[in-house]
Amino acid sequence: MEADLIIRGGTVLPMAPGREPIPDGAVAVRSGAIVAVGPAAELATIGGAAEVLDAGGGLILPGFVNTHTHLAMTLIRGVAEDLPLKEWLEDHIWPTERALMTADTVALGTRLAAAESLQAGVTCVCDMYFHAERVIDEVVKAGLRAVVPESLIDFATPSCPTPDIALARQRELLERYGNHPLVVPAVAPHSPYSVSAANLVKEAELAEEFGAPLIIHVAETRWEVEKIGAEKGVTPVAYLADLGILSDRTVAAHCVHVSEADLELLGEFEVGIASNPVCNLKLASGLAPLPQMLARELKVAFGTDGAASNNTLDLLRDAQLASLVYKGISGDPTVMPARTVVEMLTVGGARVLGLSDRIGTLEPGMRADVICLALDRPRAVPAYDAFSHLAYAARAADVCHVVVDGRIVVRDRALLTVDVPSLLAEVREATEAARARISQ
Amino acid sequence: MEADLIIRGGTVLPMAPGREPIPDGAVAVRSGAIVAVGPAAELATIGGAAEVLDAGGGLILPGFVNTHTHLAMTLIRGVAEDLPLKEWLEDHIWPTERALMTADTVALGTRLAAAESLQAGVTCVCDMYFHAERVIDEVVKAGLRAVVPESLIDFATPSCPTPDIALARQRELLERYGNHPLVVPAVAPHSPYSVSAANLVKEAELAEEFGAPLIIHVAETRWEVEKIGAEKGVTPVAYLADLGILSDRTVAAHCVHVSEADLELLGEFEVGIASNPVCNLKLASGLAPLPQMLARELKVAFGTDGAASNNTLDLLRDAQLASLVYKGISGDPTVMPARTVVEMLTVGGARVLGLSDRIGTLEPGMRADVICLALDRPRAVPAYDAFSHLAYAARAADVCHVVVDGRIVVRDRALLTVDVPSLLAEVREATEAARARISQ
Repeated sequence: MEADLIIRGGTVLPMAPGREPIPDGAVAVRSGAIVAVGPAAELATIGGAAEVLDAGGGLILPGFVNTHTHLAMTLIRGVAEDLPLKEWLEDHIWPTERALMTADTVALGTRLAAAESLQAGVTCVCDMYFHAERVIDEVVKAGLRAVVPESLIDFATPSCPTPDIALARQRELLERYGNHPLVVPAVAPHSPYSVSAANLVKEAELAEEFGAPLIIHVAETRWEVEKIGAEKGVTPVAYLADLGILSDRTVAAHCVHVSEADLELLGEFEVGIASNPVCNLKLASGLAPLPQMLARELKVAFGTDGAASNNTLDLLRDAQLASLVYKGISGDPTVMPARTVVEMLTVGGARVLGLSDRIGTLEPGMRADVICLALDRPRAVPAYDAFSHLAYAARAADVCHVVVDGRIVVRDRALLTVDVPSLLAEVREATEAARARISQ
Repeated sequence: MEADLIIRGGTVLPMAPGREPIPDGAVAVRSGAIVAVGPAAELATIGGAAEVLDAGGGLILPGFVNTHTHLAMTLIRGVAEDLPLKEWLEDHIWPTERALMTADTVALGTRLAAAESLQAGVTCVCDMYFHAERVIDEVVKAGLRAVVPESLIDFATPSCPTPDIALARQRELLERYGNHPLVVPAVAPHSPYSVSAANLVKEAELAEEFGAPLIIHVAETRWEVEKIGAEKGVTPVAYLADLGILSDRTVAAHCVHVSEADLELLGEFEVGIASNPVCNLKLASGLAPLPQMLARELKVAFGTDGAASNNTLDLLRDAQLASLVYKGISGDPTVMPARTVVEMLTVGGARVLGLSDRIGTLEPGMRADVICLALDRPRAVPAYDAFSHLAYAARAADVCHVVVDGRIVVRDRALLTVDVPSLLAEVREATEAARARISQ
């Protein structure tokens, strides 16, 4: 057997059902796919000419999957804070977005987000923003796997003056990128309260025609639940189910305010749930019933949401925080144990995005999205158990190597695909306008 | 005016009441004390021969103050997880501690903790453990400012077979280290439920005699409140107040389960409250009423607690998590705003420990405990506002320089006072026994 990349020198966490960590393990990669996983001694005969990534005694695991974000919003991280939700959104976030977000700045913000994501061990993201063609260019150049929709709202977006134009743009994307190695094109009606029933149905039909993911915000706030309840007489989840929008290709972001009946529906339709605990707490939207979702074996994993409300794309932090918060809130320290947290970050995220046939575990036949976490700092020792370390002690800054689709994109903590100093300079220049607006 | 160290090249956050951030500011240090703070241009004439620390366009602020930890417990971070509290403590933490913790391993664990703390921007800690002489040796060598008690419990501790021996050891420490530049010796009766009323009174008298801090766990769990209630007929806070234990030198760790009347008492006696949100959530102990404490203007700041229950000494994470969690729980996104978070990390921590006459702000006359945070990574840009950046986006790994009492202990993210590779090797060797025990 031959390989062109061997990742070794650490404990391998395959994250496949029933597979335990492999001390001193290795992963062999050929043409972007994993060809072997096992003890390093067993893989020693493979690929003498292969490039080697040494984890330096750390951990080797599938890359993290960020199931919900708005990549380009990195440009407005921290632009306004500590305000009531309506004031924050209407007086600060939206005006700044309108002033700042052009096709070029969306591209720049996406490049920044891709760089941040990869350095944080995130190898796959589900975006939801505008100017999808530019987003795709940037994630592909950075080497980040991504689900990328053009978003549809009933009013004009930064990229599409009307919903019909958004629909046409989505169709073009689905046709053009249907077989891309890194990008999964998708449709994204913004939410049940900002898209008409007619347009929601058109979106579902388009997604169905192409077998594509449909990304939508659902039941994020009490306000939304009350509005849909008043207008439609049902919960947002029931409304979408009635319209025929929900399927196993749906990625429903948030699902904070959901009833037991809603959870039943989400399970019945095999909907993927993207939970964003940092954002939901920060905006005081509430907390999704994650333990109940897990008990029902729903497809649920973590998202960071956009950097305007997180303020980072540090998915590991969302996962660690969730594990702590649900223990504390429930009064039960056994809730969301370490292994569950790591499963949600990897294979769980892949399931939510409908990509578990290709990513989320380290097994032969899967695409090689692999990260190495170093245990080389005082804060990282001792590490008695790999899952415990990841769930409670590891930090994004420990990510030392990142491989996406077999390509080394981060090596020794350095990003190889983006010129970071130039990127930071461009970001500082592009955000001066927003800065000037704030200081007024 | 002369200086032997100038810290410049960034925005200075003085953190003193009414003092706003100084863009392109500088801090001048002489003989371990701050001698000037202001715009770099105004300080340009100071100390031509001084050593320069350049923040590289980042932030310059007082070091973080960790108001409650058990330093040496770094050696058992992650040793057991996701268990009911009683089982976790009695079947895992205590047996491992008994097997592992000697004077030498306490010294090693303290060295590890000091290294981790300094790299995380923590320049002052309040410890609570055993073998205080060894703890002091280690923090002094590492260059970490510390409040260090010998702990007293009614039964034998790893260092003291009886409470009377602990009392004698405490007196020796108070006499020996009363005027140390880095170390504040202290007394620490473990808790109201593990120390008799007679011994609590002896501890308070000893602390009073030397004007020393008295560190004690208070109202951490419902179990404790019920036990003290059943035995004494009052709350733990009221019990300690009745005994005359509480004063403005008391550092009360946790205060999770406290009533309005308890808050009134804590304010009346000017008790310092060390809140440990990560630990309290992880062990499902509950959440202290921090917003109410802040509204009452109590002295309250953050602690990490020991690494067995955190699992790090990353105080910035505790603070950021608290800001998010209290917003989410209260339903009010204006709770614990960014500036409050940064105040609690710095000047608030100094107040809790009774050290605000010497640390916690950057002002002439204060000791020079200063950290620089870099803004040189994709995740750190844009940074529209220094407080928002620290409260929501910064990470411990961004800490690039650390100065304690005028001594540069971390430079360009490298720890200068501890040989890290040797330390990690020693830790791995010392913890093999604990590892073998776990794998059984």
